[in-house]
Amino acid sequence: MATRTPAPLSAASDAGADAETLRPSDSHVQSFARGLAVLRSFGADAPTLTLTQAAERTGLTRAGVRRILLTLQGLGYVALEGRDFRLTPKVLELGFAYLAAQPWWHVAQPLMEELTQTLHESTSAAVLDGDDIVYVLRVPAHKIMSINLGVGSRLPAHCTSMGRVLLAALPEDERERRVAAMDLGARTSRTVTDPDKLLQVLSQVRRKGWALINEELEVGLISLAVPICDRSGRVVAAINVSSQPQRRNATAMQEQCLPALLAVAQRIGEVLPR
Amino acid sequence: MATRTPAPLSAASDAGADAETLRPSDSHVQSFARGLAVLRSFGADAPTLTLTQAAERTGLTRAGVRRILLTLQGLGYVALEGRDFRLTPKVLELGFAYLAAQPWWHVAQPLMEELTQTLHESTSAAVLDGDDIVYVLRVPAHKIMSINLGVGSRLPAHCTSMGRVLLAALPEDERERRVAAMDLGARTSRTVTDPDKLLQVLSQVRRKGWALINEELEVGLISLAVPICDRSGRVVAAINVSSQPQRRNATAMQEQCLPALLAVAQRIGEVLPR
Repeated sequence: MATRTPAPLSAASDAGADAETLRPSDSHVQSFARGLAVLRSFGADAPTLTLTQAAERTGLTRAGVRRILLTLQGLGYVALEGRDFRLTPKVLELGFAYLAAQPWWHVAQPLMEELTQTLHESTSAAVLDGDDIVYVLRVPAHKIMSINLGVGSRLPAHCTSMGRVLLAALPEDERERRVAAMDLGARTSRTVTDPDKLLQVLSQVRRKGWALINEELEVGLISLAVPICDRSGRVVAAINVSSQPQRRNATAMQEQCLPALLAVAQRIGEVLPR
Repeated sequence: MATRTPAPLSAASDAGADAETLRPSDSHVQSFARGLAVLRSFGADAPTLTLTQAAERTGLTRAGVRRILLTLQGLGYVALEGRDFRLTPKVLELGFAYLAAQPWWHVAQPLMEELTQTLHESTSAAVLDGDDIVYVLRVPAHKIMSINLGVGSRLPAHCTSMGRVLLAALPEDERERRVAAMDLGARTSRTVTDPDKLLQVLSQVRRKGWALINEELEVGLISLAVPICDRSGRVVAAINVSSQPQRRNATAMQEQCLPALLAVAQRIGEVLPR
């Protein structure tokens, strides 16, 4: 989880107040952004950080980082042992505020685990955030001990099966606008990088109700996704099954995985409010 | 995930700098604390919030909440639709910074899922934070669609099996000090609420290497926990299996679940650094 530059403050909003009071001061935004950047500078490669290390990783001054870390310590989000700061489990409450707000998430978890068991393949759920998909659930197939893409991690939407399902669900004009502005980088020699071709694929996905990606994200990876719709038909998330093409080719994915995946999506959707 | 008052700023620390520079200004702490409180005011019962609702839930002024929400919007952590603010999946990155920093977490997930499948019971992992345990992993048994305690949620350590394992692992003097200061509230008529009795139970847990809780947290709930130790023997977390006493009594838990639970703890511990 590397530190990234926070997105620039978006312009005016329509919250119904005057422009004057709506624009938060730069210093507040900056101070909050820095605090969050320090939180995010911890990770798999840096479970503990000294002041100097945290300053290096965030690009902030040592004095600035010190103030932030001690603020975080005061709030119970980091703990200090000797000269090493580490995150406390209280940090989890922040991330799970998001999951708790998704009415379908707790229903999806056991159903997705059942699906992983039945198919002996990894399954996942994701939502769209800008041009990326963000994993909200990951159920690894048990024998695969390789890199697990954790909850909260991101992949480009244009070359992932769940991303295609989520992009396909957008209204046509928004879909065209987004694809035109998107960085359609190639991840393999098979990645669709032409915007017109991608729009054509997305129309097919919308018509069929599912998307299959065969080695467009990564060589040796095939994956099949379907949308989760609420009872009014609005797409709220996507779920997928992934495998290796030498184990299951496109036809096998469609014949052996699609019916079960659609059934799970249906069951999750049934609990959603209209 | 209800809003809570942030913990008071802890006093001096030993980060090796002078007291003057170590104490963050109250305004910084407050502004950061308020920002996090607003993030946490969203939840299962409030997936979207208007300004007025957010002000009510946090106890902050409408103007203060507006500034924070627009800051969060600028940073990409909340989105505005009409008059409704909602969290974006970017919030997940914050919580998962903690999990990514736990070297055993990704190894534990598939092993715990295997355990849930084998035993047909829910399994979990937790760490100690103050007097609480905090769930870091939850694998619900597939047929139980009841309330799932999500990752990040808390329970009192004194009357949970994982809490007892984690308290038992503390050095004796710290254990005594902590138990003396603890709120030993009764959750059922069977909860151990006497500090001396609890210390005695914790000594037994430490000697045996596992803890069993039979309806002390909740009527109809029995659970068995063991520690995860790194290769130097330090306890880093606890894992448990939970069931209903009418399904498996204490003897059945010990005979049918303990060996498998200990084997999983051992396998997780093997990947930990010394």
